[in-house]
Parts: sequence; C-alpha cells; structure tokens
Amino acid sequence: MSSPLTFIESLRAAWQRTNSLLCVGLDPEPTRFPVQFDGQPDAIFEFCRQIVDATAPYASAFKPQIAYFAAHRAEDQLERLIAHIHLQHPGLPVILDAKRGDIGSTAEQYAREAFERYRADAVTVNPYMGYDSVEPYFEHEGKGVIVLCRTSNPGGSDLQFLETNGAGHPGRPLYQVVADLAANKWNAKNGQLGLVVGATFPKEIEIVRGIVGDMPLLIPGIGAQGGDVQATVGAGRTADGTGMMINSSRAILYASKGEDFAEAAALAAQKTRDAINAHR
Amino acid sequence: MSSPLTFIESLRAAWQRTNSLLCVGLDPEPTRFPVQFDGQPDAIFEFCRQIVDATAPYASAFKPQIAYFAAHRAEDQLERLIAHIHLQHPGLPVILDAKRGDIGSTAEQYAREAFERYRADAVTVNPYMGYDSVEPYFEHEGKGVIVLCRTSNPGGSDLQFLETNGAGHPGRPLYQVVADLAANKWNAKNGQLGLVVGATFPKEIEIVRGIVGDMPLLIPGIGAQGGDVQATVGAGRTADGTGMMINSSRAILYASKGEDFAEAAALAAQKTRDAINAHR
Repeated sequence: MSSPLTFIESLRAAWQRTNSLLCVGLDPEPTRFPVQFDGQPDAIFEFCRQIVDATAPYASAFKPQIAYFAAHRAEDQLERLIAHIHLQHPGLPVILDAKRGDIGSTAEQYAREAFERYRADAVTVNPYMGYDSVEPYFEHEGKGVIVLCRTSNPGGSDLQFLETNGAGHPGRPLYQVVADLAANKWNAKNGQLGLVVGATFPKEIEIVRGIVGDMPLLIPGIGAQGGDVQATVGAGRTADGTGMMINSSRAILYASKGEDFAEAAALAAQKTRDAINAHR
Repeated sequence: MSSPLTFIESLRAAWQRTNSLLCVGLDPEPTRFPVQFDGQPDAIFEFCRQIVDATAPYASAFKPQIAYFAAHRAEDQLERLIAHIHLQHPGLPVILDAKRGDIGSTAEQYAREAFERYRADAVTVNPYMGYDSVEPYFEHEGKGVIVLCRTSNPGGSDLQFLETNGAGHPGRPLYQVVADLAANKWNAKNGQLGLVVGATFPKEIEIVRGIVGDMPLLIPGIGAQGGDVQATVGAGRTADGTGMMINSSRAILYASKGEDFAEAAALAAQKTRDAINAHR
C-alpha cells in the first residue's frame, strides 16, 4: 500500500492541507509537447513529471488517463510517473482514469492492473455491466472506485438521460438511478466510492449531490471542455466547501508550448485553484 | 492493415470457409497454466500461441481479453500473439476485448491502441457515454466496433434491464434502446458495428436479433458461464445460419492442466463447434 489511509481519508486530508479542490489530469499527447521533448525516449514520463512537480503546490489529486499512455506503448512510463507522485508528493491521491467495466473474473484483472501494477489510489469504472463488474475493485481494501454517472461529453445524454422506471421513482433519468445505486447499495461494501459528474451540467451536479450526500464527486469538463467554475462549485460543494475533485487536463498541460510550459502549467493550475476557491 | 477486407467481410468469409461460429476467447491466467510454463518469461504468449495453433481449425475468430495481459505487464506478449494469429492463421479476425468507453479525444487514443498498436480487426466498446465515445473507432476504415448491449453477468440486469422511455417504445429496456441506436443510428458511418449479447439470456438474443437484422452478434457466456448452446443458436442465427461469434474462453483454455492442454483445448473447441453446428 502506498498509504495507510484509505483513498477517501487521504483525499479529505489533501483537500484540507492544500486548500485546493483541483485535480490535475495527465493526458499526454506527444504532438502537443514543447520541442525539447522531440526524440526523447521517455518524453511522456518526463513531460508529465515536470507538469506534476510544477502543479503539485496547487493540486489535491492527479488523474493520469491511461489511454494516452497505452496508445504510445508507454505503460512503463505510467508506472514510473505514479511512483514519482507517491514518492515526491506523498498524500496527493492518484486516480487512474481507465473507465473499466467487465464481468467479475475480468474485473479482478483490471483491479490488479490499477492497484497492484500501477499502485493507483483510485480507479474510474463504468456502471453499464452492474454491481458484479464493480465489486472486485472493493476487494482491494482502502482503494477508491469512482463510477461514471453523468459524463461531460455531448453523447453522454444518449443513454444517461433516458427516463427509466427506477424503483420508486418513475421517470428518473438513468444517471440518477446510477447515483442512487452507487450511494445506497454499491457503497456498502467498503465506503470508498465516488462518482463522475461532468461540469458541463451544473444542474445535474446539484441533483446528484442531493442523492449521494457527501460522497466525493470527480468533475471533469472545466477548462478545455467549457464547464463553468462558479456554477460547478455552487452545485457540487458539500457543507464544508469540499466534496469535489475538479479536474482540468488540457488547459493546464498545454498552457504553453514553449520552454516555459511547466511555469505556464503552474500558473494555470494556480488560477484554476483560485477561481474554484473564490466560489467555495 | 492486416487485411484488405473489412472486419465484417472477413468475418462472413471465415464463417463460410471454416464452417464454424466459434470464437476462442484468450483469457490467460498463469496460475491455471500447466506446470511446464512455470518460470517461463513469455509464458502468456507461449500458452496462448499453442492454444491458438491447436484450436484454429475449429474457430472463425479469436478474442484476446486485454485485462489478462495488462494485469501481468504483458502488453508486448499480446502484440506478438495478435501478430502470430495474423501471420499463421490469416483470415481469422481478431477481436480485442477491451470494453473501452470515453470522451471523443480519449476514444481516439483507445482506437489507436486497438487498431494501430495491437492491429486488432475489431474492438469491444461500452455504450454508456453515447455516440461520440464510439465514433472515433469508425475513423479506422474497415475496423469493427462491437458495442455492449446485454451482458452475460448477473449484474448485467442492474442497468440494462431498466425500462426506459426509449423514443416511440415506452417501457423498452435499456439494452433494447442500445440495440436500436446501434443498428439504426450509430452504424450509419461505416457499417462495421456488432453487438455483445450474452448467451445466458436466449430470449433476449432473439429480441435483439429482431431489432438489428443480420448484424453480427458476439455471444459470450457458453461454457464456464453456463449458457445453453441450442437455445443460443436458435435465438441468434440469421437466415443463412450464421450471424454469431459464439465465444468460449475458460472451457477451452483450461480443458486440461496437463501436458496435453493444447490437444484438450482442440478437442473442446471441436466439440463446441459441432454442438453449435448441430443446431444451425
């Protein structure tokens, strides 16, 4: 284990200690790196490492997106990056954004991938296959499981907004059924569950917050995806002004394509943290 | 490209040429390998290679499940395995079972992973995030995209069986809405779409078949998961007696734990093919 605290304990401690709700998303695209990384064999690790070190003072979590590593055969660089975060920035949880979803026996393998191989503190998962596709992650004590609920992309509405016969709530959209299942059934086993709710839909963040109490919400979609910070914070905060991992990836990573990319990233992270804090 | 044919063309050609609807699932678990693989550095590749070579005469497709490779840091062995299938068993499509699902920019990365890095002919994807999470896969001309519809696991019902207000069909369960979207909207772009429908629910295979015409169905759940072959084939076949990739993984891979594991796998594959053909 990278920490004796559970995921949610370390997240809450980080929110207090850092006075930040910002989660820095790590979506490395080599074509967008500054020129000094050209031809470097571990460019992905090195770019992300410098981003991490520059933005850590303004962040309470990091979220590497595994697709960006897998597309470039860079799993080893992802392993080293997460190890670097644990070593150099202890107490900042790492959420592996993988959105896995599969039958129980396969989910066990994905849980090993996330928690044993990569040593992530939490992983994102997809609810479409139901409870037994989520349960194997709970076997890893203290690790976090963050379930997709209402996603920030345009197609998110295709299924998530369908009205259902959700027990006792006729007409309830699918994403609300997922929030209810997650909060009232799936979270019973280890209490380490969170939900993904996109910043592009503040009204829906508010509804989800009403369903799930103070469960942590991972909120992508500010920055490059256009979500509004004030509306997001107003809709999602808990009574103590926390409860959210507000993620920004591209707006921080690619704030500058020059030699000053890390300083520019730090400045973007600081500004985002401050914009969030102005509305808490 | 590994083949000048599209995924669906090569699949249909394989069904005819091999007279088999069997898809052999490759879910390597080193603890279940015969003792001769102990300590072998490329045990996963070597075990799967021998299974592939032994079962190829009875199969029309192979389906490696990426979680089993990722959990063991064996991405390179998966690359070599797929290359081996293309080289030694040309014309048998490879479906990468990854069940990915993410926003468009991330889906582009996963599509690169599946089609450029691994050179799979098709990939499984999760519909929860809607059309723009599926569309980037279609940019890879001729490649197949197989969308989860009704999964074979117990928790599959948690969401997939919820009744919805699916346009024009009040009360329609979610999996039928997915089948309808897939067949009538999402497939317009490249016509290379298929659906996953579990063998544990033959009645629902029949309903999906009624919605999607002759779209290929990937049907897991016979063998270790307990689905009935006769009921599955009766429910899912198209007019020409094809239309299905009926998957068996564990019942073939682990038919014997002795030195004869490959022969036992071949025999299990042959029997499964014959049981399927008896009801076509």
